[in-house]
Amino acid sequence: MPSLSFKTTKKTSFVNITQHIKEIVKNSGVSSGLCLIYVPHTTACVIINEGVDPTVVKDISQAIEGLIPWSGLYEHPEGNSAAHIRSAIIGNSRIVPLENGELMLGSWEGIFLVDFDGPRERKVIVKILKEV
Amino acid sequence: MPSLSFKTTKKTSFVNITQHIKEIVKNSGVSSGLCLIYVPHTTACVIINEGVDPTVVKDISQAIEGLIPWSGLYEHPEGNSAAHIRSAIIGNSRIVPLENGELMLGSWEGIFLVDFDGPRERKVIVKILKEV
Amino acid sequence: MPSLSFKTTKKTSFVNITQHIKEIVKNSGVSSGLCLIYVPHTTACVIINEGVDPTVVKDISQAIEGLIPWSGLYEHPEGNSAAHIRSAIIGNSRIVPLENGELMLGSWEGIFLVDFDGPRERKVIVKILKEV
Repeated sequence: MPSLSFKTTKKTSFVNITQHIKEIVKNSGVSSGLCLIYVPHTTACVIINEGVDPTVVKDISQAIEGLIPWSGLYEHPEGNSAAHIRSAIIGNSRIVPLENGELMLGSWEGIFLVDFDGPRERKVIVKILKEV
Repeated sequence: MPSLSFKTTKKTSFVNITQHIKEIVKNSGVSSGLCLIYVPHTTACVIINEGVDPTVVKDISQAIEGLIPWSGLYEHPEGNSAAHIRSAIIGNSRIVPLENGELMLGSWEGIFLVDFDGPRERKVIVKILKEV
Repeated sequence: MPSLSFKTTKKTSFVNITQHIKEIVKNSGVSSGLCLIYVPHTTACVIINEGVDPTVVKDISQAIEGLIPWSGLYEHPEGNSAAHIRSAIIGNSRIVPLENGELMLGSWEGIFLVDFDGPRERKVIVKILKEV
């Protein structure tokens, strides 16, 4: 199964991985099906949202920071509870339909690996299921 | 791939699309598999929740409004950052198992297209994968 | 289609169901594909997060309680709007890739049924799609 590896550079990192996923889809030769983008981590997640204007991702990041602040009355002794909470709520995967050998992304949609507890090395598993 | 088009009528619109998805499933002739309901938009999303009593959807809508308010210190110049943030967190798709040619929805479950930046024309892609 | 049944014991219950899902995967004999874990309920959800240190789940539960409080100006007359809102935002399913007959979970990842309106009997549908 194809997987990708990314070195994030900040505590909270939004990494646009759309081109990498597109290449994996192309190399798979699959024309129609589903493409799952999955992170096997508990303090990171995958989102799909605007990949063109970077202020969108900044606003998303700021809003999440406000909703689930890094500091709080958390019990988990590692001090990264906010990252776990964000990952649990948002979800550790997204799925995109495939047709004519391409991801059916909308014009503005990009796929992002989001690390809430970087900088770290993060893995993204890409699983393509072919329609038969 | 089947897709549906809806004209939303308000800024925030919850459109119950369950019957439309059921028809697509029926017409597909697929007995067992997965059904992905996907919006290729960055200011809309798909949710599954109670489709019977409309006060539930009103409460969900109000809660999201309170958590991620329309006005705020957002950088994105288009003024619709709240819609992007809501879509990113909630997710732009849901997936339902199929068995005996039917969606395995619970008795109270309905599928909703949620537009956070309407009124607009919105597209819903439905991708069915057959078990073989 | 395999399904599991759990009796939750508290208003908010996080039930680690990882071992049950692993058994279903093993019994399916499927080597490579996708595994959907789906709850057909509107006041429960599925999350994937740390399954080792129980303080993580406590922090996740507390944070959700704070974000979407049980009491509020809700219209739904059954009094469980908070549970509906949580389920709608978090989502009623998660999906995990399969390879070599195993769930591709990360070292710390566990799969949880989360009941926000217990105690109740809850059903979890497990749908495995084989890669061909």
